[in-house]
Amino acid sequence: MLLRRCLVVALAVTLSASAAADEAKPAHTPSPKELLAKSQPREWRTPDPKDLLVMELPQGRVLIELAPDFTPLHVANIRTMAHEHYYDGLVIERVHDNFVTQWGDAANEDESHASKLKPLGSAKDRLPPEYTRPYDAKLPFTILKDGDFYAPEVGFSEGFPAARDKANQQEWLTHCYGMVGVGRDIDPETGSGSELYAVIGQAPRALDRNIALVGRVLQGMEFLSGLPRGTGPLGFYEKPEQRIAIRSVRLAADLPASQRPNVEVLRTDSVTFTALVDAKRNRLDDFYRIPAGKVDVCSVSIPVRDAKPSR
Amino acid sequence: MLLRRCLVVALAVTLSASAAADEAKPAHTPSPKELLAKSQPREWRTPDPKDLLVMELPQGRVLIELAPDFTPLHVANIRTMAHEHYYDGLVIERVHDNFVTQWGDAANEDESHASKLKPLGSAKDRLPPEYTRPYDAKLPFTILKDGDFYAPEVGFSEGFPAARDKANQQEWLTHCYGMVGVGRDIDPETGSGSELYAVIGQAPRALDRNIALVGRVLQGMEFLSGLPRGTGPLGFYEKPEQRIAIRSVRLAADLPASQRPNVEVLRTDSVTFTALVDAKRNRLDDFYRIPAGKVDVCSVSIPVRDAKPSR
Repeated sequence: MLLRRCLVVALAVTLSASAAADEAKPAHTPSPKELLAKSQPREWRTPDPKDLLVMELPQGRVLIELAPDFTPLHVANIRTMAHEHYYDGLVIERVHDNFVTQWGDAANEDESHASKLKPLGSAKDRLPPEYTRPYDAKLPFTILKDGDFYAPEVGFSEGFPAARDKANQQEWLTHCYGMVGVGRDIDPETGSGSELYAVIGQAPRALDRNIALVGRVLQGMEFLSGLPRGTGPLGFYEKPEQRIAIRSVRLAADLPASQRPNVEVLRTDSVTFTALVDAKRNRLDDFYRIPAGKVDVCSVSIPVRDAKPSR
Repeated sequence: MLLRRCLVVALAVTLSASAAADEAKPAHTPSPKELLAKSQPREWRTPDPKDLLVMELPQGRVLIELAPDFTPLHVANIRTMAHEHYYDGLVIERVHDNFVTQWGDAANEDESHASKLKPLGSAKDRLPPEYTRPYDAKLPFTILKDGDFYAPEVGFSEGFPAARDKANQQEWLTHCYGMVGVGRDIDPETGSGSELYAVIGQAPRALDRNIALVGRVLQGMEFLSGLPRGTGPLGFYEKPEQRIAIRSVRLAADLPASQRPNVEVLRTDSVTFTALVDAKRNRLDDFYRIPAGKVDVCSVSIPVRDAKPSR
């Protein structure tokens, strides 16, 4: 036991000289709660109602923020579908453990489905891939100094985890827990936004640059992740009655003001966000005696809070 | 579109010269199914029944393989508790989204609980931490050549994802999806195995070396991950009726032969496992046009199959 205790003290000294002076009370990194309590109002932003999808499930409400600066054509198509109530009555049809929860038109899964598919209305049924966007140094990008296992550079852009590659002049959103993407067939142009998925497991980063990500779940993630897993191939529900009906999906901008969600997201270029990331990177407290020393882009939480009712 | 297609072809050429000769049919990495179909019987191992926990939940059966070579004292204690039916009637009391599902004695969560706790029988209620073990080059360790974001070296040891640090002469199991650990209080010696958790989200690698991991879920992970999330602090269920009762937990060795699970696990030092990891690392097929080029230790699946009934 002595060896272990010595190791803990040695690490604490590395992090903070004060810890050596007071072994009884080792250095503590601040908790997220402490850091958020000190945040300033200007560090929080209100998502644009045009970028906020409100999905009503029997389990509860899921809020998804769209990322038009990364996937403008897909986001425009999804806005059109939400505006025209395309998603209402569609279903969660696939819950693939440690991978994705997917929703859309179950007729896609049935044989000879073409005649039964719900019409897309004014929305397009094919779109260019939009898996990456051209690198642009002027676009917001807060670099995560820890680096990344997969990409040359990662960080956060306008509230989304993202990666970029200067050499190849590309940027893209990263497949982290809670990110929302566009299901497609083999043909890269078959993604329209009529089938969407949310990541519910270990970040499937190999999907990065192979499929379009369009946003992130801000609230209600537990209603997508806490569902029974499908037992069919790829986690599809085998019986139609297992599917979960979507009551409605609306753009917040299409809702009366009284029904709009009123949430705020911590800016990923704020001082408080940087402090949260640092506290996670070097977490040291009564429970965590050995700080990880690093934090990966997909293990960072981006805080969301209910805004005060006054608008 | 042309730029994107050129990029895909360029990458395919890097991976396989044959792709350049036949652009219409790009190089494909083999699928897991194809690779497993070619595996040899000797590449599969049958877990020792003394290391196999069989947990019966209302949702189904969960199989956990214990890792006595990493955490011998904890595994011995868990074997004792299973042998004496300690876990029967305890509950899943916590499902913390993107983190852990935890089970144990709910009296731990209630006030003035001490008098209501189920007795541990012959098991110990305190154990040395066992968060790491001494580095030993003679112990099995198949290095993952990709390296790791957190540890100097990672790989697989006897079927478990693991890390090691030659400089500090330590080895430890890594907190990947499906790994099972020992809940504890602040005091590092308060872990006994009476409270266990399974990782159900993005690998919480910061827990590595701060808590004892004792094994991995081999089958039935979906019964732990696909549960409604708890709405109390830390994901605890707020109402007692939300808790899920554990019907029984047995060591396979304590079950009659006819009731023992009959599973095989692909050896992590086998040729087929190496091929699976490589196919994941460089996945290239009709859907994945841009290979990740790397694979992290927590995104590797370790195959488990039902063995043929003849023993």
